[in-house]
Amino acid sequence: MSIHSVRRECANLAWDNSIPPALHVKSGDEITFDCADASNGQLTADSTVATLENLTSLTGFNPVNGPVFVDGAQPGDTLQVDVLRIENPEWGWTGLFPGFGLLADEFPEPALKIWKLEQEGFAWFDEKKGIKVPLRPFAGEMGVAQKKKGAFSVVPPYHTGGNIDTKHITVGSTLFLPVEVEGALFSIGDGHAAQGDGGSAIETPMKVTVRLSVRKDKPYTKTPHFSTATADTPSGEYYCTTGIDSDVREAMRSAVRNMIAFLVAEYGLDRVGAYILCSVAGDLRMHEVVDMPNYVIGMMMPKSVLGPSNEA
Amino acid sequence: MSIHSVRRECANLAWDNSIPPALHVKSGDEITFDCADASNGQLTADSTVATLENLTSLTGFNPVNGPVFVDGAQPGDTLQVDVLRIENPEWGWTGLFPGFGLLADEFPEPALKIWKLEQEGFAWFDEKKGIKVPLRPFAGEMGVAQKKKGAFSVVPPYHTGGNIDTKHITVGSTLFLPVEVEGALFSIGDGHAAQGDGGSAIETPMKVTVRLSVRKDKPYTKTPHFSTATADTPSGEYYCTTGIDSDVREAMRSAVRNMIAFLVAEYGLDRVGAYILCSVAGDLRMHEVVDMPNYVIGMMMPKSVLGPSNEA
Repeated sequence: MSIHSVRRECANLAWDNSIPPALHVKSGDEITFDCADASNGQLTADSTVATLENLTSLTGFNPVNGPVFVDGAQPGDTLQVDVLRIENPEWGWTGLFPGFGLLADEFPEPALKIWKLEQEGFAWFDEKKGIKVPLRPFAGEMGVAQKKKGAFSVVPPYHTGGNIDTKHITVGSTLFLPVEVEGALFSIGDGHAAQGDGGSAIETPMKVTVRLSVRKDKPYTKTPHFSTATADTPSGEYYCTTGIDSDVREAMRSAVRNMIAFLVAEYGLDRVGAYILCSVAGDLRMHEVVDMPNYVIGMMMPKSVLGPSNEA
Repeated sequence: MSIHSVRRECANLAWDNSIPPALHVKSGDEITFDCADASNGQLTADSTVATLENLTSLTGFNPVNGPVFVDGAQPGDTLQVDVLRIENPEWGWTGLFPGFGLLADEFPEPALKIWKLEQEGFAWFDEKKGIKVPLRPFAGEMGVAQKKKGAFSVVPPYHTGGNIDTKHITVGSTLFLPVEVEGALFSIGDGHAAQGDGGSAIETPMKVTVRLSVRKDKPYTKTPHFSTATADTPSGEYYCTTGIDSDVREAMRSAVRNMIAFLVAEYGLDRVGAYILCSVAGDLRMHEVVDMPNYVIGMMMPKSVLGPSNEA
C-alpha cells in the first residue's frame, strides 16, 4: 500500500474522461486530497454578503480534485472508496444565492453566514438562544469519469457520482461507484462541515483521505451505493442505494430498484421478497434536491435488519 | 379527564364533515380506538394470495374510526394528539396489489406475506437467513375533517392529515393537526406494525389510545406537524413539519416553508436564518409516496439542534 497526495491546484470544473490523471495509484492505496471550498476560494472567513453579491455567477464553483487513475479498474468494475480521515475544518460559510435552492423564489435576496468551527463537534448557530449544529464533515463531491465523451458540469450529480451531497458518507463510511472508463478516474471535492438533506451546507475547505480499491464482485452497482459507519449514524449502520434522475419520482423508483438488485445479489432474496422488505423496513431519503437538473434519492436499509451478509 | 372508547364498527370510508360524531369528549380526554386493519377484515392471518386476488377492488379499504368531536375546538385551532398506548399486534400482512405502489409497473403479479408478530420487538422476514424487521407500531391514518363539504376518500392524505403513513409517530409521539370545523372531528385507523418510508407496511388490526387536546397557541400549524419520542428514534428527538401535495417538489417546498414558519414563531428566528438552519441541520424525509394523488414529505429538525424552546 502506498500513500499519495493531490495538491489543491490539481482541480477541475468538469467530469471529462480526456483530462489526464493527476496521479496513478494501485488498488488499495491511500490518497490525501487538499480541496478548496465550493466557491474555489472566492469566499473566505472574512467575506460579507457584499463579497457574495460581487460573484456575478457561480463560475469556478465546485472544483473537484483529481482525477486519480486506479490501476486495474476496468469498465463494469466497482470503485470502493473508504473515507478514512478528514481534518477538522476551522471555518465555513452558508450562502443564499439568488435563483438557487428549493425556495429560491421566496428568498430573492443574497445572504451569507460565516461559521466558526472551533468548538469540538458543533458550531453555534445562535449561542444566546442555544441553537447549535452538530458537525459531521464529509465531501459533497465524489465521483468517477463517465464513458460518454465530453465535459460535464461538476454542479449536477450523475449515476457515476459527483455532486451527490450525501451527508451520511462521513469518516468510516464506504462509497461504491460504477467504473465506466479504464482507471476509473476518481475525483473529490466540495467539503461540508455539516449539511441537512437538501444539499446546502456549511461549506468549507477540506483535507480528506480515502482508500481506493477495485472491486470485481459488485456488478449490480449502477449508481452510487454506500455503507455507513455506526459512529456517524446513531440509529445504526445502513447500506444505501441511490437513484439519480431529473424526475424525482424516477429517482425514488431507481433507488428502490437498486436496493432490490442488491438484496437479490447479496442475500439471495427473490425480487418480490426484496421489494416487500424495502416497503416494511427501508428508509427513503432525499440526499440532494438543489443541484439541478438531477435529484439524489437514497433507499437506506438498516444493517440490523439484514442477516449474515456476503457483502463486505 | 375522562376515558372513552370507540368500537370497531364506528368506522367510515370518507373524511366528511357531515358524518355525525361517534363520541363527544373534552379537551384532554383519552380515547381508545379498536381499529380494523387496512383491508377492513377482508384479509386475515389465514389468507393466501388467492384471497387477495379475489378482492376485485380496494373497496372498503382504509377505514377510519370516529369521528370524535372535541369540545371547544374551533376552526383555526390546532388539535394535539398524544399517542399514549398501542396494544402489541399479533399478526399482520403485506400485499402487492396490481397497479398500486412505487414500482407497480415492474411488479404486475399480486403477492401476500403473512407475518407472525409474536416475538418481542421484531418479526422474522426470513429466520434461516437471519433477516428480521423491527416492530414500531403506529396508526397510518390520523386526521380531522376538512371545512370543504363533501366525502373525501380515506386513501390519500390531506393537509388535515388522514393517510399520512408516517412511521415516526409511534407511542410517545405527538401529532398536531389544523382544525377546520367545530369539534375538529378526529378519526384514526390503518394500524401498521412496521413500515419503511414508502407507505406500504405490515398491516394489522390495532388498539390504540390517544389523548386529544385543543391548542389555541399554534396558529402556524397548516399541515400535520409532529414531535417524536426518544424511545422510537434512536438518533434523538425530532420536531417535524410536513408538506402534502400532488407534486412531490411542491410537497418538499411546503415542508421546508412550514419548518421556517415554526422556527420563526417558536424560536424568534428571522426567515433567512430559519431557512439556513433547515439547510444545514434538517432531514428531508419521504413519509408517504404511494397513496396517490398526494405525497407526504417531512422536514425533521433534531431537537438537539434547538435551544430552550417555547414549544411544549
